[in-house]
Amino acid sequence: MKNLQVLMARHPKGWVTEEDFRLHEAELPKPGPGEVLVRNVWLSVDPYMRGVMDPGRSYIAKVQPGGVMTGGTVGEIVESHNPKLPAGTYVQGMLGWQAFATSDGKSLRVLDPKLAPLSTALGVLGMPGVTAWIGLMQFGEPKPGETVVVSAAAGSVGSIVGQIAKIKGCRVVGIAGGKDKCHWLKSELGFDAAVDYKDGATFKALRAAAPKGIDVYFDNVGGDILETCIAQMNNGGRIACCGAISQYDGVPSAHGPRGVPGLIVVKRLTMQGFIVMDYMDQSQQALAELQSWVKSGKLKVQEDIISGLENTPAALIGLLGGENRGKRMVRV
Amino acid sequence: MKNLQVLMARHPKGWVTEEDFRLHEAELPKPGPGEVLVRNVWLSVDPYMRGVMDPGRSYIAKVQPGGVMTGGTVGEIVESHNPKLPAGTYVQGMLGWQAFATSDGKSLRVLDPKLAPLSTALGVLGMPGVTAWIGLMQFGEPKPGETVVVSAAAGSVGSIVGQIAKIKGCRVVGIAGGKDKCHWLKSELGFDAAVDYKDGATFKALRAAAPKGIDVYFDNVGGDILETCIAQMNNGGRIACCGAISQYDGVPSAHGPRGVPGLIVVKRLTMQGFIVMDYMDQSQQALAELQSWVKSGKLKVQEDIISGLENTPAALIGLLGGENRGKRMVRV
Repeated sequence: MKNLQVLMARHPKGWVTEEDFRLHEAELPKPGPGEVLVRNVWLSVDPYMRGVMDPGRSYIAKVQPGGVMTGGTVGEIVESHNPKLPAGTYVQGMLGWQAFATSDGKSLRVLDPKLAPLSTALGVLGMPGVTAWIGLMQFGEPKPGETVVVSAAAGSVGSIVGQIAKIKGCRVVGIAGGKDKCHWLKSELGFDAAVDYKDGATFKALRAAAPKGIDVYFDNVGGDILETCIAQMNNGGRIACCGAISQYDGVPSAHGPRGVPGLIVVKRLTMQGFIVMDYMDQSQQALAELQSWVKSGKLKVQEDIISGLENTPAALIGLLGGENRGKRMVRV
Repeated sequence: MKNLQVLMARHPKGWVTEEDFRLHEAELPKPGPGEVLVRNVWLSVDPYMRGVMDPGRSYIAKVQPGGVMTGGTVGEIVESHNPKLPAGTYVQGMLGWQAFATSDGKSLRVLDPKLAPLSTALGVLGMPGVTAWIGLMQFGEPKPGETVVVSAAAGSVGSIVGQIAKIKGCRVVGIAGGKDKCHWLKSELGFDAAVDYKDGATFKALRAAAPKGIDVYFDNVGGDILETCIAQMNNGGRIACCGAISQYDGVPSAHGPRGVPGLIVVKRLTMQGFIVMDYMDQSQQALAELQSWVKSGKLKVQEDIISGLENTPAALIGLLGGENRGKRMVRV
């Protein structure tokens, strides 16, 4: 038995391509004393992964050429030298794009498959869910009746942000690419309105969708959409800066959004950047609340599943191009 | 006796010029029932005044062509029909660029000339002082040993921000235009370092002046200097957005600073815009603390005085060009 792995073959130049990855058959790793062997069942595919492929420093460890791609995983322990983690235990970890991995268990989270489908540990009951909850509740501070706008609204984080904002009694506007996604946001996820940024007239469409202006903007994209939202923020508005997916791939933008800092001052706006890893002390509270909403049906789980470890590079490339709806992951 | 006034003759096109103003001799106004007549002694000259000359809406009432220029004032009541404000009382108000004005007294602040020189009510013990205090303490939250950078550091607000940050035990770096101002910040106001943005190599000079990175940036200017500071912020840094004097006059910038939102996210930065008028409930605390520092000599008062009401337009034009050192005001 071999261990199938996806390696980063080289640092991407501009847009990431399949040639930047390489499929590799390695020997099955052997767990050492105190270690476990995990067979991965689900691999997470997330926008931040584009960043770890670039050289330089970041808030997350970079992948080196020839190294296994970083990534969140859900799997089953198939061999254990650790009495706390017997074989048969399901665990969530950061074991990367590979079929098997060993671990000392310290950074593994034990999952109860009876509580929720295992895959949700990578989505609504995992990092994306906690990101949505922390960003919206802590930095957006939405009040009932306020208008909340979220970009990349059909993505793993955005689709949860919008649903939480609805639970909190807000008017919710999603910005997404394409008519189908926009229709889905309204008909399936209960958003009040959706703006298709691929349609061209984003400023006008957003004005129509948020006629009272924007109180909270949850920014996943940066770039032109951030600029448009800043222009439509209400006084005292809050912008939770979660990501800048429009800037991750290709050539970085030479400029930031117009209105910074002029409109920040005049409208008394707050822009707050955050990284979910800094708020692990609040993740239990977030997960408990998210789980209760999922259970009661208030929060719909949307997963976008690709089959086959060998398709993980294409899954990431497609994610950066905006082709997913909900949390994208790969079934190994 | 006549009332000399400076009117806004027309909306400026691009850079403001003396032709945008007009000197006017009006009749001396007569206070009505409950009103007082104030003879202005000091007129304030502030960057925000450029904004009130443009058409459109703002957080402060706009001046219309032919109207008296807006502005803070200190003066003496010379005639009173209001028993609470007898003749001889000194008051601070927003009576505009004119020698005399009537008021119902509701928005006048009574000054005690024994406590502090009257002019300080327009500077360190007035709006600029409170702006510096609120912005630094509430949004900068400086901790001892942290590095605080302030732009327009030789200006009315910036020179106070830097001094408060020194009192709070921070390393303080001022950004100002010209060798003389920079020397003055260090030798007279006790700044640890100063960067001359007119010298060209601002990025390198700032890196040398703030070798441990920037924890708090008090932004009075926006534009390239904001971009440079964002690039040198430490994780968790706070940017207090007070103004954007680099953008007020001339042609507005077509773009914002690079690094927004990318660096905001990765470095977990907070950018917070504020307008001092929103924090009047805290102004008593701010003024009390500022006054105690002035009294003990910890906070130096620096005023930049121009003589003659007719010179107020030139005083504003020069201020927007950065020629002042400390709080600019006009002695009527």
